[in-house]
Amino acid sequence: MPSGPLMIIGGAEDKLRRRTILTDFVAASGGEQARIAVIPTASSLGQEVVEVYDALFRKLGAADVVAVRPESREDAHDPALVARLEAATGIFMTGGNQLKLSALVCGTPLADAIRAAHQRGVVVAGTSAGASIQSSHMVAFGGPGATPKQRMTQVAAGLGLLDSTVIDQHFDQRNRYGRLLMIVAQSPQLLGIGVDEDTAAVVEHVDGHDVMQVVGRGAVTVLDPSRIVTNAYDASRSTTLLASGVVLHVLPDGSRFDLTTRTLLPEPGLVDLAEAADLAEAGQDLRNLARDIAAADKSPTALRRRLARRRPPAGASPDTTPQQDPRQDPQQDGAF
Amino acid sequence: MPSGPLMIIGGAEDKLRRRTILTDFVAASGGEQARIAVIPTASSLGQEVVEVYDALFRKLGAADVVAVRPESREDAHDPALVARLEAATGIFMTGGNQLKLSALVCGTPLADAIRAAHQRGVVVAGTSAGASIQSSHMVAFGGPGATPKQRMTQVAAGLGLLDSTVIDQHFDQRNRYGRLLMIVAQSPQLLGIGVDEDTAAVVEHVDGHDVMQVVGRGAVTVLDPSRIVTNAYDASRSTTLLASGVVLHVLPDGSRFDLTTRTLLPEPGLVDLAEAADLAEAGQDLRNLARDIAAADKSPTALRRRLARRRPPAGASPDTTPQQDPRQDPQQDGAF
Repeated sequence: MPSGPLMIIGGAEDKLRRRTILTDFVAASGGEQARIAVIPTASSLGQEVVEVYDALFRKLGAADVVAVRPESREDAHDPALVARLEAATGIFMTGGNQLKLSALVCGTPLADAIRAAHQRGVVVAGTSAGASIQSSHMVAFGGPGATPKQRMTQVAAGLGLLDSTVIDQHFDQRNRYGRLLMIVAQSPQLLGIGVDEDTAAVVEHVDGHDVMQVVGRGAVTVLDPSRIVTNAYDASRSTTLLASGVVLHVLPDGSRFDLTTRTLLPEPGLVDLAEAADLAEAGQDLRNLARDIAAADKSPTALRRRLARRRPPAGASPDTTPQQDPRQDPQQDGAF
Repeated sequence: MPSGPLMIIGGAEDKLRRRTILTDFVAASGGEQARIAVIPTASSLGQEVVEVYDALFRKLGAADVVAVRPESREDAHDPALVARLEAATGIFMTGGNQLKLSALVCGTPLADAIRAAHQRGVVVAGTSAGASIQSSHMVAFGGPGATPKQRMTQVAAGLGLLDSTVIDQHFDQRNRYGRLLMIVAQSPQLLGIGVDEDTAAVVEHVDGHDVMQVVGRGAVTVLDPSRIVTNAYDASRSTTLLASGVVLHVLPDGSRFDLTTRTLLPEPGLVDLAEAADLAEAGQDLRNLARDIAAADKSPTALRRRLARRRPPAGASPDTTPQQDPRQDPQQDGAF
């Protein structure tokens, strides 16, 4: 069975109006059959957060919502708590402090159960802190700013649901280019993924590739440092970093991106359908002409005459009798 | 005579402490021979701004400072005002509203005189609005944000001292990735240049290339959209733009970048000098060995023996007599 989708949400997903992302999550979890496990551990609120998502997911049609709320690493080893993920068809990790979430969950049976659920096809979603923790390398904390500076942020280990990546969130709203650039300058094997608020990167495993589709109001920004030139190995504390040659992709709603090859994929639906029909008809016309040329070695003049017979001149009524061409070959016309 | 340097300053250049950028400007203007023309037209303050820069440039050693302050397009046609640029060895355009500056100056004899001064080798500097106006295409105004959105900013025509570029300023501090990305997505023949505060992009014309060197506390961010994939021709009002494949260069103090080829240049002084001397010596050794091999068809064993004679074994005193090799050829030793 293929692994389930990841929904990496940049925080502040709409909960009141269109709720596009949360609706997508419930649908991916099975809609009316959805049994959703909410992990609120990153949040300092805890129970209140569970109540908000419980109400939301039930309103959006989910059959069941359970809280999985470890408050210590010991809790995250508790077989009864871990077992609550067994029946889940969707897992949702809330926002808050991703370092608290990783401190309590990573390296425990609960983390193993989240990974196992992902492997057996369950959709795993997380917003803000719950987004950050999904990558192999996690932004622990750090300041804002567009320009990367040495030590402006810290990296910790994430859950590793998405390999060779580092995920940041609230990307536009909190001006986080600098810290994501700092991380990829120091770790150029990672792909930096910055997700805006009310926006999700939905990652699915397709034919051996991790394919990301963007959903929501903002963009997902990808920083590919494969060919970076940097002084990050040499720069002193808090100096501005050199980061030359980073390839940048800003991807709005509907964009599809292959994380494995690090390339944009064609967007289905970008083609104008009427234009496509016109093009198909013109293509068929050209193919017919080419076949006629091959079959009868016709001169271009003869072909022009044939076209003139098929298309009434401008101003002529559609039923004008076409001028007869004495060289006309009825058999050839039959081929049209 | 080659054209003079451009100093494109991202605003808020240090005026009280190290004053690196303003010191560089006075030096480039001729130091004690510097005759500086200040154009304060972008500013709503006017005379007060002139007084600040007058005091600063004189303190930094300039011989003379004059104000060139058109307050209307008619002023910018006044031959007496325009003539004040004739003796200038440096021109400094202050911050403020770049659209006011371009509205009063662009397309007037004063603009021609600025360009002529640049052509005859005069350094032309500008900070904030005075930076923006130097490019061929100018950010007129626009909002902040990391993610590009259709119509989040407006472009007007600049002075055109630097072709095929669009310059933005206060880049880090005012979170201006989004608007610069929007502009290059709509005009992919332009190179986007974002300059941080207290930072300057110094551009000189060298061997037919525009070479930029970065000076100051922050960075200069270059967005190269040569290979962009974008939906900017098709996106509706205020939607988030697709901008995939933009090459990003974040360049701190000391970096050099070829604006013509759009590539990072090697930074002089990045090489460790002791390491370079070691490498040069090792290279000479290898060349000597290669020459000996070519001259006498020596076996590697014979070469090892010769090296052993030249380098005392570990623990031996430097004046230990080397073991004699009966196959030694005195003529070959002379070649060392």
